[in-house]
Amino acid sequence: MSVITIVGAGMMGSAMSIPARDNGHTVRIVGTPLDREIIDHARRYRQHLTMKRPLPENITYFQIEDLDLALDAADVVIGGVSSFGVDWFIETVIPRIPEGMPLLSVTKGLIDREDGTLISFPAYYKQKSNRQLSFCAIGGPCTSYELADRRHSAVAFCGDDPAVLLRLRQMLETDYYHISLSTDVTGVECAVAMKNAYALGVTLAVGMVEKEEGVGCTLAYNPQAALFGQSVREMSALLQYIGGGAENIVYGAGDLYVTVFGGRTRKLGTLLGRGMTFSEAMAELSGVTLESVAITRRLIRAVNRAVALGKLEAGQFPLLMHIGDLLEEKPTKGIPFAAFETTVFERR
Amino acid sequence: MSVITIVGAGMMGSAMSIPARDNGHTVRIVGTPLDREIIDHARRYRQHLTMKRPLPENITYFQIEDLDLALDAADVVIGGVSSFGVDWFIETVIPRIPEGMPLLSVTKGLIDREDGTLISFPAYYKQKSNRQLSFCAIGGPCTSYELADRRHSAVAFCGDDPAVLLRLRQMLETDYYHISLSTDVTGVECAVAMKNAYALGVTLAVGMVEKEEGVGCTLAYNPQAALFGQSVREMSALLQYIGGGAENIVYGAGDLYVTVFGGRTRKLGTLLGRGMTFSEAMAELSGVTLESVAITRRLIRAVNRAVALGKLEAGQFPLLMHIGDLLEEKPTKGIPFAAFETTVFERR
Repeated sequence: MSVITIVGAGMMGSAMSIPARDNGHTVRIVGTPLDREIIDHARRYRQHLTMKRPLPENITYFQIEDLDLALDAADVVIGGVSSFGVDWFIETVIPRIPEGMPLLSVTKGLIDREDGTLISFPAYYKQKSNRQLSFCAIGGPCTSYELADRRHSAVAFCGDDPAVLLRLRQMLETDYYHISLSTDVTGVECAVAMKNAYALGVTLAVGMVEKEEGVGCTLAYNPQAALFGQSVREMSALLQYIGGGAENIVYGAGDLYVTVFGGRTRKLGTLLGRGMTFSEAMAELSGVTLESVAITRRLIRAVNRAVALGKLEAGQFPLLMHIGDLLEEKPTKGIPFAAFETTVFERR
Repeated sequence: MSVITIVGAGMMGSAMSIPARDNGHTVRIVGTPLDREIIDHARRYRQHLTMKRPLPENITYFQIEDLDLALDAADVVIGGVSSFGVDWFIETVIPRIPEGMPLLSVTKGLIDREDGTLISFPAYYKQKSNRQLSFCAIGGPCTSYELADRRHSAVAFCGDDPAVLLRLRQMLETDYYHISLSTDVTGVECAVAMKNAYALGVTLAVGMVEKEEGVGCTLAYNPQAALFGQSVREMSALLQYIGGGAENIVYGAGDLYVTVFGGRTRKLGTLLGRGMTFSEAMAELSGVTLESVAITRRLIRAVNRAVALGKLEAGQFPLLMHIGDLLEEKPTKGIPFAAFETTVFERR
């Protein structure tokens, strides 16, 4: 049995305690400065405050001041911050991870650079922290609620070191938590980050139909499917651009599927689809932090830079560009369905 | 303006009259021997009997005896039969299509051959009829109901002759019916045929959760997303096997998305997921003709033959093989989620 320390007591980080405890590991959860109440609540009620799910027995909870204690003699650290916490994590947590201890991050997102390229969080961690830890990450379609409910979930662990990945899989795999492995960190991580933008894209069609027929109407699926197909097309082109393997579209498509069905990203896409401006929609979603919007903005910024530098053609990404216009509150003529048409005239 | 003759008055064939009439073409609809009532009803009430949608004004309806009259001086024939009507169509309709008149078929499916290969209906038409017509087909995510409701729908017209495809697009494209073009007939047609099998696969997870929680429960999406991702993986491998372009996964994924949301295939997948045997599920769906099952059986037969001939590895298709076991009522250990795990250890 191993000792697993989860740093960041958000929903996804905390949900990782469930396969970890089911496999009999010692689990420690450390809250960030934003998680104080979650930690207090979990200690007292053995329940996650925001996820509203029971947490396994025999977890030790720590506030951030006791980080070193929680990391002592651990076998692996699971990074449980959201993408908003990444810089804090690099400054505060990574320097204190003991040499040789792998980090497995649940954080989804990517970083755009001045030259129009995109890098994954593991690559960013390595670069910024200047440490030689084994930086691994989890991608794939897995919501925290359903992992906590022990629903069958298929994810990918990615990292540079096959031996570390095999060990992490052995540690965390259960009969409901299914783990693929990949050393293509860029491919896996960028595929699953992109789905944030495209989940906004697909759900525009929900709002569009509601606008015509009234909220509560029978939804139409042809328009959603047109957007889903176009999302797969644009995500595949972006995967190729960033140098990720084509097979990672499996994670992009699966994660897009699960994201379309619920949560805040669907809500925002639906409101934009009804014709609200971005500010109106954000007012309606008051107080809700939208990680998906931040990730979408980064992706669009990177694509715009790559277009300016002649590395990509804007015309390849009509849906992403449309989402960008909506976020910038530029006037649009609606979802550019006609721009999705392709012509493939080649003899095979 | 052109003259468009639709042969086969099923829902999809008839729905094609809507973009055709919106573009001002002369439209003739010919019923098959199974469509007599549909034709009588449409003549009398200007409504489609089974689709329960109004049909456009100024369509001329024909019973099958007047096929030659309906084909006279037409610019294009739209083939509107289901895959069960394909042999009838080859024997009865194709020989009577005047030389030089293109055929655009809405029929989705594929034909499996003794050597484990799969061919598209346009290829089958050409082979069996021994005629040199321009055989084209429509693929992509488009349900007839929603086309009849003029929802945005993105489809692909495929065929051998770019000039014919361009003409057909010009004829039928509207501000809601968006048409991509491809000369990769095998790729487009097989991508959209495969979704029948995989829509059964994805919806197994709906029934699986209902079995645990009771019908009417909140659905879980992690398991569906795991199956959706695996479907994309297997469909991509099958596309490669049949020699279709990888880009056609866009149609496969989009069509899978729309098929998962409704209709008889979802119902069957859900019942099987709940643990019913195939016979029990078919009894529950009494009287319903399931084209998707016929197509799925063909696909599985082809893959089994290809495996036997050493052209494919069975291990690449755990979901398809599981669906095959369910249709054959073989004992299974449930959805083989663990078999979906992949390991990609390559440096890029």
